[in-house]
Amino acid sequence: KKHFKITVLPGDGIGPEIMESALDVLKAISQKYNITFEFQEGLIGGAAIDETGEPLPDETLKKAKESDAVLLAAVGGEKWDNLPTDKRPEKGLLKIRKELDLFANIRPGKAYTALLDASPLKENLIKGVDLMVIRELTGGIYFGEPRGIEERGGEKVGYNTMIYYEHEIARIAKLAFELSRNRRKKVTSVDKANVLEVSAVWREVVNTVHADYQDVELEHMYVDNAAMQLVRRPKDFDVIVTGNLFGDILSDEAGALTGSLGMLPSASIGERYALYEPVHGSAPDIAGQGIANPIAMILSAAMMLEITCKLPEAARDIENAIDKVLEEGYRTGDIWSPGTKKVGTKEMTEQIIKYI
Amino acid sequence: KKHFKITVLPGDGIGPEIMESALDVLKAISQKYNITFEFQEGLIGGAAIDETGEPLPDETLKKAKESDAVLLAAVGGEKWDNLPTDKRPEKGLLKIRKELDLFANIRPGKAYTALLDASPLKENLIKGVDLMVIRELTGGIYFGEPRGIEERGGEKVGYNTMIYYEHEIARIAKLAFELSRNRRKKVTSVDKANVLEVSAVWREVVNTVHADYQDVELEHMYVDNAAMQLVRRPKDFDVIVTGNLFGDILSDEAGALTGSLGMLPSASIGERYALYEPVHGSAPDIAGQGIANPIAMILSAAMMLEITCKLPEAARDIENAIDKVLEEGYRTGDIWSPGTKKVGTKEMTEQIIKYI
Ligand SMILES: CC(C)[C@H](C(=O)O)[C@@H](O)C(=O)O
Ligand SMILES: CC(C)[C@H](C(=O)O)[C@@H](O)C(=O)O
Repeated sequence: KKHFKITVLPGDGIGPEIMESALDVLKAISQKYNITFEFQEGLIGGAAIDETGEPLPDETLKKAKESDAVLLAAVGGEKWDNLPTDKRPEKGLLKIRKELDLFANIRPGKAYTALLDASPLKENLIKGVDLMVIRELTGGIYFGEPRGIEERGGEKVGYNTMIYYEHEIARIAKLAFELSRNRRKKVTSVDKANVLEVSAVWREVVNTVHADYQDVELEHMYVDNAAMQLVRRPKDFDVIVTGNLFGDILSDEAGALTGSLGMLPSASIGERYALYEPVHGSAPDIAGQGIANPIAMILSAAMMLEITCKLPEAARDIENAIDKVLEEGYRTGDIWSPGTKKVGTKEMTEQIIKYI
Repeated sequence: KKHFKITVLPGDGIGPEIMESALDVLKAISQKYNITFEFQEGLIGGAAIDETGEPLPDETLKKAKESDAVLLAAVGGEKWDNLPTDKRPEKGLLKIRKELDLFANIRPGKAYTALLDASPLKENLIKGVDLMVIRELTGGIYFGEPRGIEERGGEKVGYNTMIYYEHEIARIAKLAFELSRNRRKKVTSVDKANVLEVSAVWREVVNTVHADYQDVELEHMYVDNAAMQLVRRPKDFDVIVTGNLFGDILSDEAGALTGSLGMLPSASIGERYALYEPVHGSAPDIAGQGIANPIAMILSAAMMLEITCKLPEAARDIENAIDKVLEEGYRTGDIWSPGTKKVGTKEMTEQIIKYI
């Protein structure tokens, strides 16, 4: 396949700025690799609420379903923070994940040698870290029913349901074992099986699926212990597989370890569709200033090239370009340290394209 | 009050060894401060299962309710890991918390100057960290109903309910604001209000309670962001208040930052009862070897002296003794680093008592 239809969702805050960077990089790639992209923009998040009243308009969803992949930048911001849970920008994100059945969110966490300074961890702990969090994305407490807010016995009560079905656990576990075979063949499954029934089922199903992957080492870890061990010995992790909520927490924690949240891409995939987005948020505080780090967005586009377009060479190309630019000392504000060159979103992007 | 009845629950793994240390320290304190302790031992956890079939026998609960305070070491171990969720050693812990209505778990996280080496964080980030996680302990997903494992549509499904009532949130929020007044007057409330209804209620009630504490600064933070910011800038936190599950995860993460899990005590308190226990677990791998770090258990006893016995001087006395022993270079294996003196549980305890 040489032609790809991509739905582009810039969203809120720094979203539009970093999306522009990713599209510029993809244009350079399309020339070099002789492929073509057809980009169609759509509304999501706060931007969609302002224009249509809905965080995910039907039209956006329709476009997404007609595309080979979706590129999403970021949603949310203070402006919409007082809307009810069900009407918020984040709901657009949750809905598109669910509607496209993107059950697996893949978040690589890699320590860049050029950025070891930026890590909060001591150098010997962070150097060489190369892990991947595989988060279940369309189930668990994010979508579980019943949920709601009501009065009981004269007082307010809020509740949600953390629920997992066997098949939901089996498919994400399978993916984790498969992906670990291209890596160090070690999977850490994270749950809270000493307290939660939903976790007991999780653990049981992961064990069952593991029977088909005896060449892969499997360990189980409680989520509190995982939050601790990620800080103490991040190098020991290879593939982490876990539910939606635990994955949300642990992937952000793992991201913080590398010291460069602005560098972390993600891929959300299902049987038919795929969506690529940075791990970081919409950063409204620096929006519109041209100083946001575009690298996580660009690396998300690279994941798209590898997974959707089946062009791993193009993905490596982008990663290498980024490595070189970092080695040359170019830094956006978030990863800047004394002795390096501070640049804005545009210049960072141009430097990267230079090497493609 | 000069006489205190204490229920002592050594539990499993290293539990009995570190409990002995704490009792030795309390004996020294009782002479110096002219108070008396009456210790009555009880069964809990795996030890209780082995002897009675129940993780929390009624007799233990009865003893606890007749005491001024409960000292608990640790429960759990591989031996009992294959029992169903409802029959595990951990259930004993959860049940005693619930039966004594210990709704607030207080976990101080302090960086010891003598132990900065042991922290995974860069020294400038960890030095001076002094935070306190206040975790709701008798509600949330740990106890929410409905919960269970069943068949639906021919497949297994597991589910739990994360639920909070207004009054549960209000009382823990109140405690957090109160405690922050003896500190830096800053409270960070952690939730996932952008996704969960239970968190939306949490946030609303915390805001309402805050109206009575206008001198205290309140910030709200999503749990994924909190997991990240704890690693990036732990010094910015003073009091963190959050629900049962998020508190479990974040307090362990915060504990890991100081690099000395074996140093972290906790107090679980309610209207009538109080229980003191270390944050760490039963460490079955090193049980019975006389090498466990007793300091977290001893500091838990110090929290008891301060909160239950109203003897803050005695608590300070113990803390100062520990500071001195650390400065002299004594270390158990878990906090040992080259150039310091490795000692076992007993010698560490004797060194501490020397200064009381
Ligand atoms: C914005 C929010 C709803 C979202 C989530 O919790 O999934 C975000 O934190 C993420 O990790 O993509
Ligand atoms: C042992 C376990 C049930 C317990 C919990 O999750 O509360 C422990 O992790 C803790 O934090 O005290």
